[in-house]
Amino acid sequence: MATAGVAVANGSGGADTKAAFKEIYSKLKEEMLEDPAFEFTDESLQWIDRMVDYNVLGGKCNRGLSVIDSYKILRGVDVLSKEETFLACTLGWCIEWLQAYFLVLDDIMDNSQTRRGQPCWFRVPQVGLIAVNDGIILRNHISRILQRHFKGKPYYVDLIDLFNEVEFKTASGQLLDLITTHEGEKDLSKYNLTVHRRIVQYKTAYYSFYLPVACALLLAGENLDNFGDVKNILVEMGTYFQVQDDYLDCYGDPDFIGKIGTDIEDYKCSWLVVQALERTDEDQKKILFENYGKSDPACVAKVKDLYKELNLEEVFHEYERESYTKLTADIEAQPNKAVQTVLKSFLHKIYKRDK
Amino acid sequence: MATAGVAVANGSGGADTKAAFKEIYSKLKEEMLEDPAFEFTDESLQWIDRMVDYNVLGGKCNRGLSVIDSYKILRGVDVLSKEETFLACTLGWCIEWLQAYFLVLDDIMDNSQTRRGQPCWFRVPQVGLIAVNDGIILRNHISRILQRHFKGKPYYVDLIDLFNEVEFKTASGQLLDLITTHEGEKDLSKYNLTVHRRIVQYKTAYYSFYLPVACALLLAGENLDNFGDVKNILVEMGTYFQVQDDYLDCYGDPDFIGKIGTDIEDYKCSWLVVQALERTDEDQKKILFENYGKSDPACVAKVKDLYKELNLEEVFHEYERESYTKLTADIEAQPNKAVQTVLKSFLHKIYKRDK
Repeated sequence: MATAGVAVANGSGGADTKAAFKEIYSKLKEEMLEDPAFEFTDESLQWIDRMVDYNVLGGKCNRGLSVIDSYKILRGVDVLSKEETFLACTLGWCIEWLQAYFLVLDDIMDNSQTRRGQPCWFRVPQVGLIAVNDGIILRNHISRILQRHFKGKPYYVDLIDLFNEVEFKTASGQLLDLITTHEGEKDLSKYNLTVHRRIVQYKTAYYSFYLPVACALLLAGENLDNFGDVKNILVEMGTYFQVQDDYLDCYGDPDFIGKIGTDIEDYKCSWLVVQALERTDEDQKKILFENYGKSDPACVAKVKDLYKELNLEEVFHEYERESYTKLTADIEAQPNKAVQTVLKSFLHKIYKRDK
Repeated sequence: MATAGVAVANGSGGADTKAAFKEIYSKLKEEMLEDPAFEFTDESLQWIDRMVDYNVLGGKCNRGLSVIDSYKILRGVDVLSKEETFLACTLGWCIEWLQAYFLVLDDIMDNSQTRRGQPCWFRVPQVGLIAVNDGIILRNHISRILQRHFKGKPYYVDLIDLFNEVEFKTASGQLLDLITTHEGEKDLSKYNLTVHRRIVQYKTAYYSFYLPVACALLLAGENLDNFGDVKNILVEMGTYFQVQDDYLDCYGDPDFIGKIGTDIEDYKCSWLVVQALERTDEDQKKILFENYGKSDPACVAKVKDLYKELNLEEVFHEYERESYTKLTADIEAQPNKAVQTVLKSFLHKIYKRDK
């Protein structure tokens, strides 16, 4: 499936939080441009400056903002000290930088055209495959930021290990997605629910849902080993979120979600095609095999007709209801009330979203 | 310039060291394939297994082996305990993994054909741009290996910071190289000694020369802050090494160095062209501008004729003598005898090499 390009957590952060968050971006970028570990030339300074703006900004920053929201809830306060605000925003920006790094490289691998309403970075004139190295530099910025602002904190090692583990899971999920799509192009029946679930969990859920909360927990002095259930719940929520994304790719209003879905044309291992494969008889399967992954609008229409025949809209709504009920029960079983609030705020931001 | 593809430190490691080193590779790779942080499918297991073998193996492992050699000298022993051997070899392999990561991505960016006598990884059928993600996975393996085997050691944080800093310097050097070559293609006079030196130091010297010794120092319980001079000497040696590489690209025996140099055709910011630019009169400069960066053998021949006219072979030998004298003096000014021995062993491995 496509990397979720729609909002993770609509409505994150009030206007004040957003303003503070934005301000800290400028500071962090300046520090990257003055990093004594490299002797910049004028050209390389300009390059990095433009590259970071182009790729880190332009999203809704829901992942980043949710670090601050979650941390406030965990601390039980509405207003943070200047120091706390800075640290929470900095971790939020590290997640935005991580997202930028993934997106720059994913777009190259997927040969995509646009991202966040502008050409993908590698398609910008003079950039091309230098974008591979730019992706690497974005990843390196995270290590530089963490070292500069968190070295010496008791949770510094845990923070580094967290980012490393989440990055590893994401890259492994991306590999699985790439291999699966390869195999699926030869034989659509390679797609199934188990594979879909595994790709989604690793490629999207860990970094989009678990990582922001884990950052907030570390900042609040907690030991992540004690929050295994929280991890599972957030990964489950991330899975639900990506299923919605797959659903909206086909059924969402393009004007409203800000992109025209092409999962069918692109042979994506979408939740919808996986559900279709589970439900087709032999004749329907033949239609699916013959028309999936073709750019011809007539083929796409046939696939969509089949989805309708199989009543996939209702299958999705049933999944949505069940998932919501299960997540709510799991959240309410959590002993820690602040943690419950954090998890519920995530759930309410994504449940029945239409973009 | 091209990333140095010839030996860093010919003759590193005796046969026993090499055998021990090789054995530990298998163990580390197995651990990567059993990493509980990802639920592998059969296909993804096979992919990673093959990808790691293809890219991490096949080199001479001089960078990796020099960790073990350096550590033995620092400890003042000929034989290490089983535990020490394992840790030193593991750090050596982390450097080999880092090298593999850089090479996989560099080959994509340079659109190269072959590496270590086989097609570049991205040119292998079915791989293509999945190689970008494979590069990322190779980098992630380093973090996984360090976490598994070094977490809890007093120098764990320093080790992570070291790899992060060296990676950042290398990626920044690569950016500078890419931008400079871009600019140079439009205007050859953008190439000069300062820019050449900066690219070489950051892109090659830190990870090839400083990193192995820094790993050995950390393993021996030293604080890297006390070894600033050692860092400078090793970076200087790395610069000298890359200048040799640039020289051999034009003047080395292709059968002996194992590749046919194409720096002139590829518009590389080579030490030779930079020296030529320093020495040309207006007419010669015109010849250089008209013929550099062209694949036509007649153009290449004209550039080589000019190099001969400017006596660049002798300029190189003069640089080599001066560099050796300076490095020897700097090494002998080091207070620590074991450190002197480590540095001298590096110097002797690279001085007057012909491949």
